[in-house]
Amino acid sequence: MTTKENLLEKIKTKSAVVGIVGLGYVGLPLGLEFALQGFNVIGYDVDESKIPILKEGKSYIKHISEERIKAAVDSGKFDATTDFTRLPEADAIIICVPTPLDNHREPDMSYVEGTAKVIQKYLRKGQLVTLESTTYPGTTEEMLLPMFQDAGNKIQDSKFIVGEDFYLAYSPEREDPNNPKYNTATIPKVVGGVTENCLEVAQALYNNVIVQTVPVSSTRAAEATKIVENVFRSVNIALVNELKMVFQKMNIDIWEVINAAKTKPFGFTAFYPGPGLGGHCIPIDPFYLTWKAREFEVNTKFIELAGEINTFQPYYVVQRAMEALNDEGKALKGARVLVLGAAYKKNVDDMRESPSLKLFEILRDKGAVVDYNDPYIPKLPPTRKYNYDMTSIELTEESLSSYDLILLSTNHDDYDYQFIYEHSKLIIDTRNAFQKSGLDNGKVHKA
Amino acid sequence: MTTKENLLEKIKTKSAVVGIVGLGYVGLPLGLEFALQGFNVIGYDVDESKIPILKEGKSYIKHISEERIKAAVDSGKFDATTDFTRLPEADAIIICVPTPLDNHREPDMSYVEGTAKVIQKYLRKGQLVTLESTTYPGTTEEMLLPMFQDAGNKIQDSKFIVGEDFYLAYSPEREDPNNPKYNTATIPKVVGGVTENCLEVAQALYNNVIVQTVPVSSTRAAEATKIVENVFRSVNIALVNELKMVFQKMNIDIWEVINAAKTKPFGFTAFYPGPGLGGHCIPIDPFYLTWKAREFEVNTKFIELAGEINTFQPYYVVQRAMEALNDEGKALKGARVLVLGAAYKKNVDDMRESPSLKLFEILRDKGAVVDYNDPYIPKLPPTRKYNYDMTSIELTEESLSSYDLILLSTNHDDYDYQFIYEHSKLIIDTRNAFQKSGLDNGKVHKA
Repeated sequence: MTTKENLLEKIKTKSAVVGIVGLGYVGLPLGLEFALQGFNVIGYDVDESKIPILKEGKSYIKHISEERIKAAVDSGKFDATTDFTRLPEADAIIICVPTPLDNHREPDMSYVEGTAKVIQKYLRKGQLVTLESTTYPGTTEEMLLPMFQDAGNKIQDSKFIVGEDFYLAYSPEREDPNNPKYNTATIPKVVGGVTENCLEVAQALYNNVIVQTVPVSSTRAAEATKIVENVFRSVNIALVNELKMVFQKMNIDIWEVINAAKTKPFGFTAFYPGPGLGGHCIPIDPFYLTWKAREFEVNTKFIELAGEINTFQPYYVVQRAMEALNDEGKALKGARVLVLGAAYKKNVDDMRESPSLKLFEILRDKGAVVDYNDPYIPKLPPTRKYNYDMTSIELTEESLSSYDLILLSTNHDDYDYQFIYEHSKLIIDTRNAFQKSGLDNGKVHKA
Repeated sequence: MTTKENLLEKIKTKSAVVGIVGLGYVGLPLGLEFALQGFNVIGYDVDESKIPILKEGKSYIKHISEERIKAAVDSGKFDATTDFTRLPEADAIIICVPTPLDNHREPDMSYVEGTAKVIQKYLRKGQLVTLESTTYPGTTEEMLLPMFQDAGNKIQDSKFIVGEDFYLAYSPEREDPNNPKYNTATIPKVVGGVTENCLEVAQALYNNVIVQTVPVSSTRAAEATKIVENVFRSVNIALVNELKMVFQKMNIDIWEVINAAKTKPFGFTAFYPGPGLGGHCIPIDPFYLTWKAREFEVNTKFIELAGEINTFQPYYVVQRAMEALNDEGKALKGARVLVLGAAYKKNVDDMRESPSLKLFEILRDKGAVVDYNDPYIPKLPPTRKYNYDMTSIELTEESLSSYDLILLSTNHDDYDYQFIYEHSKLIIDTRNAFQKSGLDNGKVHKA
């Protein structure tokens, strides 16, 4: 039996051990999926605090249910550890670590690189490694491949041969937290291998838990695919944000226009404006391509323009807030402002890159007294960029009426818009939530 | 009975006469639809040559069938004329004239304005006028309304009152020539009225022939809706064209990436690159908003960038052609080039704004000897911009092999790609048609 046949056999009989590096929004649901399908799963994470939570069958992500975690743990198929010396136990290692941007909007590859170094140290013959983190085209071949080839030197003073001694693939995550229609298992998964053997093994693995794998000709093509998906979203959101600002000048309501346009049964897809981009993908991923493109002396003008316009949105919202207060003869400086919603999108507790955090900053810089409410985030946790010491304000008749301005940033379905409307002095609505609820007199200003 | 009740009654009983001004891609199918639904239709056009063709039950637009025209004419419900003094015969006048751009990419409103002047001259009490031509937000209220109000002066020395004496609405056409799934009658139609009465009457009229009317709060909102639909397409096509150029440098195939990305079941819509924009809508409409936005001192950066990148595409294709020839040690100057496809999109004979016309120009400017083939366009008709004296070259073994380069611009389904491939020396493919047919060795270069 060749190495490949051996690994394929283990995958087929579900005796392959699946290692997941990074137990966050991507790695945790994927690991659970493998465990619930009968694979032995080892989850590796550097964050010690996660391990006991998981072992107790509890969740640290709102939309990932405790039942699933408990079922996986109780089945004995799901183990979590901070001990990376156990990497050789895994037959397949799936890397699900963050790829953020640094303060200058350049790729921060430290998590991928750090993980790759540890894997390089422990890589043994016959292992499959796949990368799921969104990254620039070329990462797998240019960064991971040489490192893993070198791993052979530690034992036999000769390089590991990819596609024979080990397998390397790239398969982008397509998680959409809290999507009611699709989850990890039901979203088709793009896979590119460094060699044909790599692709074959990676597809075989994912086919056990994913409804459909989509093979592409190279890891580069797979890396590019994920970026294009998010460039599409980033650019289209920026486009409606720009149109929002243009139409506001013309006294045309962008929300009405989008709702009319989407009655066209072909050739149109609705995107909606908002206070800025949020989440781990859309505000970040496109700039990985921008960064890589410079190496080839080409520009990604659409990505740059989308970045410019989306980045401006929280500033635009504050500008609109200032104008609305000004109409009442009030200054923003000294005004009491309550921001509704701290999460980056509705009905989740996910604060990654939330524009609300930026709004707090800009409002405070301009001298406003800022509070927030979010039913899912009782206290603001520290993020990579911010560390606010704030707790969620309860929404009562008394609290609402004590603010000069209510600023709706995240339109959680739980909000009682009628109640908020009744007890507020002035409202800035970035989500069209009040008009949608039939509440739209002069007190509500869209932004 | 009020004027409105009277008009509504006529519409309900189909005794209202429907006048269509402009019998082109929009007006002709719409007029036929009304006639076939039992309304008496009068089509007005300044082009005398169209009238006898229609009266004989013939068609001058490939995708509009002679059967439909013949049926409408034979029923006695469809009349065509150049005589605008007959405008008072119509109870409803629908304006379907072109709104192109001038040489400086500014709106050319001469057709709308000219039509409005004639209507102003003949407008009588009780008439409904709707504009379907794509235009900047504000056109109906700022240009047409004052003209038609003034029409009252000619008879009674007092203005016509809109919503009482006459009705004025804007309802954008959404024609997609040769769309296999949707036609005039089955595409929902957005309608905005100057007053509520105007909206009511216009909806009543269109409801007779259109599957669904979508009311919006103003003519401005309706005008903006149509522009947003086409801005969306223009921007997304430009985005893939930019990505095509970036990925070509990185040795990644944009077509493969798009096909992989579109397996994502949410949040992605596939658009494809090409040799440039064509047709009457997408290359033109967005700039109507750009022009209007200047009045409000705001910019439409996405539209400008899309224009820049889409306009560059034919130049990019020629650049790629030059590189491919160069690899063979040939110059483009003096090379014999055959462009396949003159229509702006596949399977139609519509040449409006076709990028092929621009390709001919650039290729000739660089000294190439240019011919073309298009199964639907035996001879190039003169257009607003170009007047080539060229006829379609037959595709034979001999003719194909006599060219240094075959440049596929429009991917008509009729093309026998295998045959073309076999007998060509070198191919530039702007539509991924050859690879799609399994033909993709070194002879085919994508552009």
